[in-house]
Amino acid sequence: MKQATPLISLPELADRAERVAPFIVMDVMNQAAAIERRGGSVVHMEVGQPSAPTPASIRAAASRALEHGRIGYTQALGTDSLRERIARHYQDAYGVTVPAERVVVTTGSSGGFILAFIACFQPGARVAITAPGYPAYRNILIALGLEPVAIEVGPETRYALTPELIAKAHAERPLAGVLTMSPANPTGVVMAPDAIAAVAAECRRLGLWYISDEIYHGLTYEAPATTALSADPDTIIVNSFSKYYCMTGWRVGWLIVPERMVRTIERLQQNFSISVPYLSQVAGEAAFDATEECEAIKAGYAQNRAFLLKALPEIGLGDFLPVDGAFYIYLDIGRYSNDSMAFCRDVIENAGVAITPGLDFDEGRGARTVRLSFAGSLGECEEAVKRMGAWLKRR
Amino acid sequence: MKQATPLISLPELADRAERVAPFIVMDVMNQAAAIERRGGSVVHMEVGQPSAPTPASIRAAASRALEHGRIGYTQALGTDSLRERIARHYQDAYGVTVPAERVVVTTGSSGGFILAFIACFQPGARVAITAPGYPAYRNILIALGLEPVAIEVGPETRYALTPELIAKAHAERPLAGVLTMSPANPTGVVMAPDAIAAVAAECRRLGLWYISDEIYHGLTYEAPATTALSADPDTIIVNSFSKYYCMTGWRVGWLIVPERMVRTIERLQQNFSISVPYLSQVAGEAAFDATEECEAIKAGYAQNRAFLLKALPEIGLGDFLPVDGAFYIYLDIGRYSNDSMAFCRDVIENAGVAITPGLDFDEGRGARTVRLSFAGSLGECEEAVKRMGAWLKRR
Repeated sequence: MKQATPLISLPELADRAERVAPFIVMDVMNQAAAIERRGGSVVHMEVGQPSAPTPASIRAAASRALEHGRIGYTQALGTDSLRERIARHYQDAYGVTVPAERVVVTTGSSGGFILAFIACFQPGARVAITAPGYPAYRNILIALGLEPVAIEVGPETRYALTPELIAKAHAERPLAGVLTMSPANPTGVVMAPDAIAAVAAECRRLGLWYISDEIYHGLTYEAPATTALSADPDTIIVNSFSKYYCMTGWRVGWLIVPERMVRTIERLQQNFSISVPYLSQVAGEAAFDATEECEAIKAGYAQNRAFLLKALPEIGLGDFLPVDGAFYIYLDIGRYSNDSMAFCRDVIENAGVAITPGLDFDEGRGARTVRLSFAGSLGECEEAVKRMGAWLKRR
Repeated sequence: MKQATPLISLPELADRAERVAPFIVMDVMNQAAAIERRGGSVVHMEVGQPSAPTPASIRAAASRALEHGRIGYTQALGTDSLRERIARHYQDAYGVTVPAERVVVTTGSSGGFILAFIACFQPGARVAITAPGYPAYRNILIALGLEPVAIEVGPETRYALTPELIAKAHAERPLAGVLTMSPANPTGVVMAPDAIAAVAAECRRLGLWYISDEIYHGLTYEAPATTALSADPDTIIVNSFSKYYCMTGWRVGWLIVPERMVRTIERLQQNFSISVPYLSQVAGEAAFDATEECEAIKAGYAQNRAFLLKALPEIGLGDFLPVDGAFYIYLDIGRYSNDSMAFCRDVIENAGVAITPGLDFDEGRGARTVRLSFAGSLGECEEAVKRMGAWLKRR
């Protein structure tokens, strides 16, 4: 059919959409793809996902569900059996009692943030996050008409928010909520139980929502991570099957929400998602029984970590905090460069190692930091260190 | 671990979240479940999804992908091969050329609406929708801080918006966009090519975004439905694999967006979803080759439709427009009741047939309408008519 050529131009796009920043790491990934297309070799330490496939037992559960057929909508809050299984996980893993009614299955942690932010925050509300921090927080808040308040944190507070930092930001202009992540992306830092309890108590005192992102739980190398539910049962918990269970591509996670928020979240989910992908919910339920496979993968990360904690300082890249959890090392490269984008372009072009510029995580100070992901194999970590070491020497 | 009992109460929930209305049909579904638990029988005509399972060839494609393993993130806009396959579908089905670059794979049509609304509309913008119409439009718009403008339509315009209706609403207070659906839920009405072209032209003239929801395309019983892209190549198209391809539980759909919107939508999707479930993308690609299975299922709907168009008037339920598409009949029950909720409660309790009160679709006039879904079997349709006929007689 012939289409008319429109004479009148389209309306403008919305400001809040245009304000959402691109991920700078995408440039690195494009550069890597270009090098690989021309036959070059790149060690990938830029991507924040496990290189291991989803454990076989989880895939087998999905496979069985595929044979049964239907694959229709589920209840908006998730299947009863998955919600009950997640509730039981809190008892098993943390000794915390969570009624299944307060569990909301979500389309990844991304889906959880959208629901929680809309349920909690009036338009224009200020929400405290950390810099450095996961860039999607900032962008989702902006796109939903909220105001991210990036509080700069550093090694002196182990990259975590404290009651003092929260009170100070709140005094400048009132906050509506506080968001923390432990273990953290990009710093790998785990908040101690006391540190989480102090943040929870300060949020209560100031009348703020407290949202705790626990997506990297399970991936800790010293002490296990504490759920913020232990400190305050009405904390909003965001979690996902993506990281520990190697299920990034399934897009399934969960929220734990205060009882009086459940119906509001249910109505939002009915409209925003109808329900979460069925096969992913089946797979999520099976994930809790894949402990042996998941622990084996984690043991690989632990090996990588031990190697890097020792080897990186030896090649002159030693300015980072010990990694408590997740699979990232957040490195200060200030002695080499104060332009992390140029540094990363240089590393990939001349050493064949892809890493992420800190500017994705910290708009201010990220010009002198980079993030390395060690979710790949030990061989890859060794090769990356060898390549970067040689490059730094001849540089 | 012991949890402190909080002395300070939680903050309030956000107004916009609280304004999202529950689906009234949920009450019907709960009532149906209660009847079934006590051993009673219910014919389900309330749910808007195919009762047929996802075609076997589509499930087989997902099954093969499960064996391969990884199941990781994909590009935010979707896999290249699915985007190309969707673009080809526009050539094959409509003779319209769409570059794959303008295809955005989304997490169901729901995910598509969220992206499109945020990209197009400033906070507070007014967006025209129809009453009756799909209730999630209204609720998503409200939750995103936008203002749904429900324009009442009726049999006189075949339940569709017209340039006159749009111009009138725009004159009252400026609109920013217009959303139409064809074939429509709940009315089953298909807009003629001229009607769509007229709406598209009026949107251009007034400088409004035009969003066309084409989720029920493929399910038409007289003339095929026209894509709004035929009228204006820069219309925003929302579509999904849920209905014609029987893939509700997979949560995968797509947008076609104007070229200059692609990067904005990509950044939004990176942050809002990271990517769409991988297996669902694989399945979606296979869906375009499942025509034989999909057409057989559609032939069943056509049988159901033919039966109902004849049988419903015979039992005194004849006040509806002929169903052009989708799998719904939108029935005026004004001669029996002006309280559709009470009517539906009565039908399910005393006739054992679950149907949806019109108030879900039209807050004003829905008190005298109901929606019947015929996405089940012919036997179910026959049984429903028998039960409702007997009940209306003895009423």
